[in-house]
Amino acid sequence: MPAVPTPAPGRPVAERAATERAAELARATTGGDRLALARLLTAVENRTAVAEAALRELYPRSGRAHLVGITGPPGAGKSTLVAALIALVRAAGRPVAVLAVDPSSPITGGALLGDRVRMQAYAGDRDVFIRSMAARGHAGGLASTTSAAAAVLDAAGFDLILIETVGTGQSEVEVAAAADTTVVLEAPEMGDEVQAIKAGLLEVADVVVVNKGDRPGAGRTASQLRAMLAAAAPRPAAGDDRPRPKRPEVLMTTASSGEGVPELLAFVDRHRLVGAAPDGPARLARAETQVWAIVAERVRARLEDRSHAASTSATVAEVADHALDPYTAADRLLAALEGEVRP
Amino acid sequence: MPAVPTPAPGRPVAERAATERAAELARATTGGDRLALARLLTAVENRTAVAEAALRELYPRSGRAHLVGITGPPGAGKSTLVAALIALVRAAGRPVAVLAVDPSSPITGGALLGDRVRMQAYAGDRDVFIRSMAARGHAGGLASTTSAAAAVLDAAGFDLILIETVGTGQSEVEVAAAADTTVVLEAPEMGDEVQAIKAGLLEVADVVVVNKGDRPGAGRTASQLRAMLAAAAPRPAAGDDRPRPKRPEVLMTTASSGEGVPELLAFVDRHRLVGAAPDGPARLARAETQVWAIVAERVRARLEDRSHAASTSATVAEVADHALDPYTAADRLLAALEGEVRP
Repeated sequence: MPAVPTPAPGRPVAERAATERAAELARATTGGDRLALARLLTAVENRTAVAEAALRELYPRSGRAHLVGITGPPGAGKSTLVAALIALVRAAGRPVAVLAVDPSSPITGGALLGDRVRMQAYAGDRDVFIRSMAARGHAGGLASTTSAAAAVLDAAGFDLILIETVGTGQSEVEVAAAADTTVVLEAPEMGDEVQAIKAGLLEVADVVVVNKGDRPGAGRTASQLRAMLAAAAPRPAAGDDRPRPKRPEVLMTTASSGEGVPELLAFVDRHRLVGAAPDGPARLARAETQVWAIVAERVRARLEDRSHAASTSATVAEVADHALDPYTAADRLLAALEGEVRP
Repeated sequence: MPAVPTPAPGRPVAERAATERAAELARATTGGDRLALARLLTAVENRTAVAEAALRELYPRSGRAHLVGITGPPGAGKSTLVAALIALVRAAGRPVAVLAVDPSSPITGGALLGDRVRMQAYAGDRDVFIRSMAARGHAGGLASTTSAAAAVLDAAGFDLILIETVGTGQSEVEVAAAADTTVVLEAPEMGDEVQAIKAGLLEVADVVVVNKGDRPGAGRTASQLRAMLAAAAPRPAAGDDRPRPKRPEVLMTTASSGEGVPELLAFVDRHRLVGAAPDGPARLARAETQVWAIVAERVRARLEDRSHAASTSATVAEVADHALDPYTAADRLLAALEGEVRP
């Protein structure tokens, strides 16, 4: 397998242009240019060559920000809570960025429209930045793209980055779990199906927040959650004295009035010491997600480039036709890559 | 990069045992043994060596079933609709399998419990098979595992496979979209956030079903959906006479009473001719998802095996520490693989 080409005088003009454009965007972004930041995030979302070149430059200048994932089922009040957190953080003079990971699609422009409405409240405040991500069509791409976008915001000087996920599916749980601190939001008395979704979410939570605390049943929901979390905590086997993961705290908020939000922010700030440790599990999980997503992309790109495209698509077509199983197909594709470097 | 080892007399005992066990399970599964089928699906879910060996054998014997994805936001009534479809299909004497793709986790056992409750209604009916999948921790793994499980059910003789996704996130949309026919369920008058989620779902729909048709506002929701789909349909540029994708139909059901369900089943059966075409886009997408997931797994496994483990984890740790960007890290890992076959 040949090494990926390193910059050399002979490389294509397009690639050199991308590198120059990337350097320019990276410089402007770290210099505080918000338009450059927005453009760079678009490039990251589309996984362009410019984004790659810019990230190579910016990544070593990131790693300081605290990434806070906020997730939960639709209707739990995530947007309202995020708004309350922004207000509180801004009152303390701290800059804050929001990445809204949104499975809605470009055909309706819903995500962008939502951003604009939310941004209007902070028009002229350059220390608030709200942005939707809608990465699609990549295996593991959503989590990887979100981490890359967070690194860009981090390098741009945002010390607190809220990652709000709209969906409640697998990828969104992965995204939330890849944050340094994960807040899982619930509303009182949600339906059975939502209860089922909750289980996967609870497992990744550092703190579970029962929002809409002014509704009847909020206290009971909080008690139920505490009981559920206590029951779910794995009991160590006899003689197993490894440290057990900390059981998530359960807090209550009424995001619409702001009640309980300062306590949540205090928890989040305290958790930073644990969650954002440079050698902590969150950082490692994020690095793994990004590296393996890029490795997979590189391998696929190589197998779909000119020298392999025909045989690769013939192999995939055989699988589609069920004439070949996917494991043998994968072996065949990897053998083709191997063939490249053989004499 | 060395080829993946092919079966040879010298290969490890464990591997030979897996192949034998797989052959046994595969034979029993195609022979109609439901316990063997259940065991094989567990192996598929856990992506074991037995599953791989069994799939190599079973995959060429699959490809005949019609895969129908059923998705939509929580509360739209997916489970009730699936139950109504099962009843209708069984009344016609057709066998049917259901794969419920569920992001809930093993800690509560919610998925399995739900299966048991649902299966009870068909206790003794060996032509109904209901099973939850909760693949986690793999990039793109959920879609790939679901496709593999569908191939097993297909080889076991199930001609109609309903793939019900509980979540509304990225992975669940991908899973539903990988079916031959995709049914997107909506309930009348759902909240704003649910509307936002809907956009991504609508794009993958072959038919949009407004369920709970007896509720006020159901007709209006159906009209709004028709208008939204008409507006979203891409207009061809002047001179562009390529065939445009078919706009999804909008149907109305009341799954609890069964109203509208025969019409939905008729649509699904008609759509089979288009959606389940062996060279159709759904089959190709499914093959791609599976092949690239396996390629990525193989490459990662190789980079994490004994000869590379130390340098791979050191590289990932450097990325976690932000001392190295993930692109350079990926290049370094791929170069290590390349080094393997150089003299």
